[in-house]
Amino acid sequence: MKTIKDPLHDHIAFDEFALELLDTPEMQRLRNVRQLGTAYLVYPSANHSRFEHSMGVYHLAVEALDNLDVDDTLRDEVRAAALVHDIGHTPFSHNVEEVVADHVGVEHDEVDDLLDGDVGRVLTRHGVEPDRVAELIQGEGKYGQLVSGELDVDRMDYLVRDAYHTGVPYGTIDNRRLVLELDYVDGELVLGEGNVQTAEALLIARALMHPTVYNHHVARISKAMLRRATRRLVESGVVSAEEIRRMDDHDFVVELRSHPETRETERRLSERRLYKQAVWLETHAVADDALERPARDVEEEVAERAGVDSGDVLVDVSSPPDMVESGARVVVDGEVRGLREESRLVEGLERMQGEQDRFGVYCPEDVVSDVEEAARSLYVDRSSAE
Amino acid sequence: MKTIKDPLHDHIAFDEFALELLDTPEMQRLRNVRQLGTAYLVYPSANHSRFEHSMGVYHLAVEALDNLDVDDTLRDEVRAAALVHDIGHTPFSHNVEEVVADHVGVEHDEVDDLLDGDVGRVLTRHGVEPDRVAELIQGEGKYGQLVSGELDVDRMDYLVRDAYHTGVPYGTIDNRRLVLELDYVDGELVLGEGNVQTAEALLIARALMHPTVYNHHVARISKAMLRRATRRLVESGVVSAEEIRRMDDHDFVVELRSHPETRETERRLSERRLYKQAVWLETHAVADDALERPARDVEEEVAERAGVDSGDVLVDVSSPPDMVESGARVVVDGEVRGLREESRLVEGLERMQGEQDRFGVYCPEDVVSDVEEAARSLYVDRSSAE
Amino acid sequence: MKTIKDPLHDHIAFDEFALELLDTPEMQRLRNVRQLGTAYLVYPSANHSRFEHSMGVYHLAVEALDNLDVDDTLRDEVRAAALVHDIGHTPFSHNVEEVVADHVGVEHDEVDDLLDGDVGRVLTRHGVEPDRVAELIQGEGKYGQLVSGELDVDRMDYLVRDAYHTGVPYGTIDNRRLVLELDYVDGELVLGEGNVQTAEALLIARALMHPTVYNHHVARISKAMLRRATRRLVESGVVSAEEIRRMDDHDFVVELRSHPETRETERRLSERRLYKQAVWLETHAVADDALERPARDVEEEVAERAGVDSGDVLVDVSSPPDMVESGARVVVDGEVRGLREESRLVEGLERMQGEQDRFGVYCPEDVVSDVEEAARSLYVDRSSAE
Amino acid sequence: MKTIKDPLHDHIAFDEFALELLDTPEMQRLRNVRQLGTAYLVYPSANHSRFEHSMGVYHLAVEALDNLDVDDTLRDEVRAAALVHDIGHTPFSHNVEEVVADHVGVEHDEVDDLLDGDVGRVLTRHGVEPDRVAELIQGEGKYGQLVSGELDVDRMDYLVRDAYHTGVPYGTIDNRRLVLELDYVDGELVLGEGNVQTAEALLIARALMHPTVYNHHVARISKAMLRRATRRLVESGVVSAEEIRRMDDHDFVVELRSHPETRETERRLSERRLYKQAVWLETHAVADDALERPARDVEEEVAERAGVDSGDVLVDVSSPPDMVESGARVVVDGEVRGLREESRLVEGLERMQGEQDRFGVYCPEDVVSDVEEAARSLYVDRSSAE
Repeated sequence: MKTIKDPLHDHIAFDEFALELLDTPEMQRLRNVRQLGTAYLVYPSANHSRFEHSMGVYHLAVEALDNLDVDDTLRDEVRAAALVHDIGHTPFSHNVEEVVADHVGVEHDEVDDLLDGDVGRVLTRHGVEPDRVAELIQGEGKYGQLVSGELDVDRMDYLVRDAYHTGVPYGTIDNRRLVLELDYVDGELVLGEGNVQTAEALLIARALMHPTVYNHHVARISKAMLRRATRRLVESGVVSAEEIRRMDDHDFVVELRSHPETRETERRLSERRLYKQAVWLETHAVADDALERPARDVEEEVAERAGVDSGDVLVDVSSPPDMVESGARVVVDGEVRGLREESRLVEGLERMQGEQDRFGVYCPEDVVSDVEEAARSLYVDRSSAE
Repeated sequence: MKTIKDPLHDHIAFDEFALELLDTPEMQRLRNVRQLGTAYLVYPSANHSRFEHSMGVYHLAVEALDNLDVDDTLRDEVRAAALVHDIGHTPFSHNVEEVVADHVGVEHDEVDDLLDGDVGRVLTRHGVEPDRVAELIQGEGKYGQLVSGELDVDRMDYLVRDAYHTGVPYGTIDNRRLVLELDYVDGELVLGEGNVQTAEALLIARALMHPTVYNHHVARISKAMLRRATRRLVESGVVSAEEIRRMDDHDFVVELRSHPETRETERRLSERRLYKQAVWLETHAVADDALERPARDVEEEVAERAGVDSGDVLVDVSSPPDMVESGARVVVDGEVRGLREESRLVEGLERMQGEQDRFGVYCPEDVVSDVEEAARSLYVDRSSAE
Repeated sequence: MKTIKDPLHDHIAFDEFALELLDTPEMQRLRNVRQLGTAYLVYPSANHSRFEHSMGVYHLAVEALDNLDVDDTLRDEVRAAALVHDIGHTPFSHNVEEVVADHVGVEHDEVDDLLDGDVGRVLTRHGVEPDRVAELIQGEGKYGQLVSGELDVDRMDYLVRDAYHTGVPYGTIDNRRLVLELDYVDGELVLGEGNVQTAEALLIARALMHPTVYNHHVARISKAMLRRATRRLVESGVVSAEEIRRMDDHDFVVELRSHPETRETERRLSERRLYKQAVWLETHAVADDALERPARDVEEEVAERAGVDSGDVLVDVSSPPDMVESGARVVVDGEVRGLREESRLVEGLERMQGEQDRFGVYCPEDVVSDVEEAARSLYVDRSSAE
Repeated sequence: MKTIKDPLHDHIAFDEFALELLDTPEMQRLRNVRQLGTAYLVYPSANHSRFEHSMGVYHLAVEALDNLDVDDTLRDEVRAAALVHDIGHTPFSHNVEEVVADHVGVEHDEVDDLLDGDVGRVLTRHGVEPDRVAELIQGEGKYGQLVSGELDVDRMDYLVRDAYHTGVPYGTIDNRRLVLELDYVDGELVLGEGNVQTAEALLIARALMHPTVYNHHVARISKAMLRRATRRLVESGVVSAEEIRRMDDHDFVVELRSHPETRETERRLSERRLYKQAVWLETHAVADDALERPARDVEEEVAERAGVDSGDVLVDVSSPPDMVESGARVVVDGEVRGLREESRLVEGLERMQGEQDRFGVYCPEDVVSDVEEAARSLYVDRSSAE
């Protein structure tokens, strides 16, 4: 057993199998993929990578497996899935993924094709079916819930890790207790008796991290800028979405810096000269056709009305995060119940999330007033006039 | 300036005035008053005292005052009130207070008469009116809100301190930000723009600390036992409620150990041979006359039915904690709004608190089944028969 | 398995055997024995108890045992010894122990006679020899080293715990690594290859905690005052040293408060009106007869010269702490070596400790100048005149 | 005042001047320069950047200035120097710097020419002389000691920050106390009375961080590989040292990936297929001509003897870190003394550092035995034969 130091879980132990997986190029690439994409433009310390997060998820999976009655093969499948679950992430994590997914047609948790290489070879050599690992990563089957589900070890790690590296005090959950209390009842992953609150704390952590970090309004602007640049890069044909998918942040940033279509946006990101909010309104105050048509159409309409280049207008409609943890199952008085049924807090948290929907229009600082006026006259004043 | 080391706020600075207050017997007594009473029987590390908490509250008050426009006199009044706000606490904090309050007729924040001694002399010598300090401690007036109110520095300290010493990960709030963002608008203490979530996090911290720590079912049992013993002590006449009020934990524990009426209960507490739950039910499942009559009458009724000594039955009806923080005011889009109106989370949290009401009957382990049967036949089965 | 929350080691798991030990009156008494005696007069948060420390030592012992090849009986013996190793501590830990040891003739780690009661019965019931446990607590035999020796789990816990509760940043050692790397080579407890520095960090932690916390000059004054009061109490005959040994802090403090010989000193401690340093000199600047005669004789001599009551003078000669960790053994390039031989740092740390020897004379504030003059004329000026 | 969240110092406040400096491209570049270069290959979480460190140094400088009697101009100069002190760092911090310094002829703290751009313009606009800032960064003058000297705020930040992000428990110093206790006596920066140990803790932190992190043997290998690649890149002429100096990590990595001379080495780094130690010996066991000749000559000699390509052999002679903190000055009994004179620990620590000198030869795994044999026969066996 070799141990690697982690600030969150202290010494994480890896056996030969896990070490071989760690040492593949597919896993090592994640060292240069920032876990939170452009969030470091808001929280300067948020430079942690998918690699260390993957190690943490592996650690929690092993701790959970130690308390569950599983055979060696299953154990190897699950911990392998936990370790490699993020190899499908694009550079900058979720920020770029959307665009790549549109073009490649797979999400970050669809990794079948990525299991053809070194990772696949290590798995096979150790008697683990790559296809089985791919299924677990997508949350399929009884044990897939452990890797991707309402009570998965993925979220247990990222909530505390993202809090640690941003410095925000909201992501602190009792993950040691969560992991110790995981159990299977009738094939369903549940938290044992006396843990309604442990589960509520998990929901709360995410409900607080969301607006403060993941959905911070400045993080949204930089994310929208990056998405636009990525789209241009792919559409220009100089690099394919499939190629981007396998890049790390270094390659991708330099790619953006190398092409006239994306150079200026990348420079704005690198120098933190971000677009500003021209409009940032609760969605109920905005006309439906601003929300329901493709962003691109809305951007063009606003740009035309404002008399600016359509490349200077970014529209961003935030949809409420799914509160997947609400579906967690907990044992109460000896029977399995849904957390949503059991906890009156869940509804409050879901409403709190709902409040965060916004219609945003971003543009360079010098055209903010024109763009604001255009967007308001098109979608807001009209709406209130009705 | 002298600094004293604190694990939560690092070095806390005290000037001559504050040091003189710290050095009074009234303040030093708090070193031997456990902040969380008997909670150490559930969380073994919860041995922190009212003294260190008082230092922390002082520190946060000074930080808040540094950002507010106050003159020197007011500043001295507020920081003095913050520092001495807990001198009215009985031994074991809230656990014993109830009984003492019944007999003495004052709550822990009514400290007028305690300002006659050394504390009062220090205040007067430094040009601070003791009466003014007493009013601030009770939350009166514009600046009383800072010491005792929806956004007071008292709760900002105890939530993080209690979390630190119990080891529970739920009490972590961004108190540096809270303190920096406090402001007065039209004479009301508010949080500045952009802090709805900072305030929500405060509510959440308390909503999570409550069932996990303050209201933990084992903490409730020990608290009920201590309350009973305190009542007996006072009623036996060997020591008055007023005397207890001025004791520290050492004196009080030995007093309990010294009298036949209380010796056995104290020993049970000291050796952690606690009563067990015979009944622990949501209040809506229990007949009203169990909830509304004095606990003593219910205890006698249950004891008689069970054929046990009435001294062996403890009834404990938990009332929902007030969510005083819900009344906090925050600035949103330039206007002051109530947090309850602004945040849909508040309602969820209030419901979550409501769920925690319980009717508990505790007794020695060997009579649990008799007492349970008696209590159920009296108040539960009957109720469900209706 | 039941888990108990600890701020340092998170959830600590206890099986039935360990729980039964925890639930004895001998162990529960430790909840009311402050780990650091009067250090809370310097670090207000240092209110942690021997009880939580004992839990932590147990936890580290179990972690170490998990990595060693031991049979079940040995395992039970060692973890029992780790858990109950402190039941011989007097109130206020080391502060009072000296006096008690003088009269009872046993140190805190001689607990044979304390294993006659409930603890002994639990041990026997679970097939563990109480005598064997008593030996382990004194560090005897191969496995005694784990409980009390250069690399014992006792110091691994207290260094981090004392740092946590005082807030001092110096006690942070990598105890998870230490525990994982413990091994036996030729019957000797050693740290495996690559851990010279892990061991050095342990030494450093203690070398820094010593002057800052354990040997802080104000802690020394309060300790000397407490020692004097304890001696008076025992000599007055109202309570025996053996009785004190079995008290908790509550009983002991109230005992001090109850007798005219000790009341005033206890009050000074409770109200933190401590004696002041009249003299605080490096020992090499002081005449030998001040250092080598019994403190009591020196105190009387000084008092007489100063014209004050001999009860008002306290002499305190600090002896250098033993750097027991220097004797730790580490594996370097495949062979076991002594840390002192291997690390050039050790000598530096031992010298650093040596520098801290002091000759102190303490007395009430109002006679400081008289006492200082007397002590200097007796032992210092004469010395420098020689 | 705007605040930015930092995990170490919580909310850091920036006024308009500081914000304008932060917003320059020179400062923003540091977001993509890893503070510890390739140390993330040993400590996966060590992905923190020079940017957040610069913010931390600024914060500590402001705290120190608040306690010193300085006028506004001086204050602005010092805090500007603290904030921009790292703009001269190359990609990967110290790892690449050496090579760049050889070619450009300036070290990372020589930033005169970098103050021509936006940073210089902001300084001038706010009445601060760029030349003056450049001098302070090099530690010149009375106040330069605060920015770069034995007690500078640079090391106070990086020691705790590097510990936080690696997870190593050794870098914890009491930096709040250090900053509060800084003072000037006769124009020299000193620590006030009672702080010998505070200063010792600073030395200890660095003495422990050095072998564990900064000088970790695997970090050394990756650093040597990166240095070799950088040298090749510069010598190939495709990019100049001056250009590298102004790159961030993204540009630099992709540059290494783009050229045949460096592609393979960069790939080894990215995939963590590092060279192995063929030889790793204390320098006193090695012949002088291995230590004193240019590494390149030694590498060629070893390669020839081993029959491998000279590009496959890396020689690495570690020199002992300077213990610059030993020169710190502390006030003891009212007079300023050197820490080295005052603390017997310093000598021990200096010896401990000295022990760490090593002669390393690294090469690809498949030629380790050939290279080891060659190096030993050339420099070691011969040496021991003498």
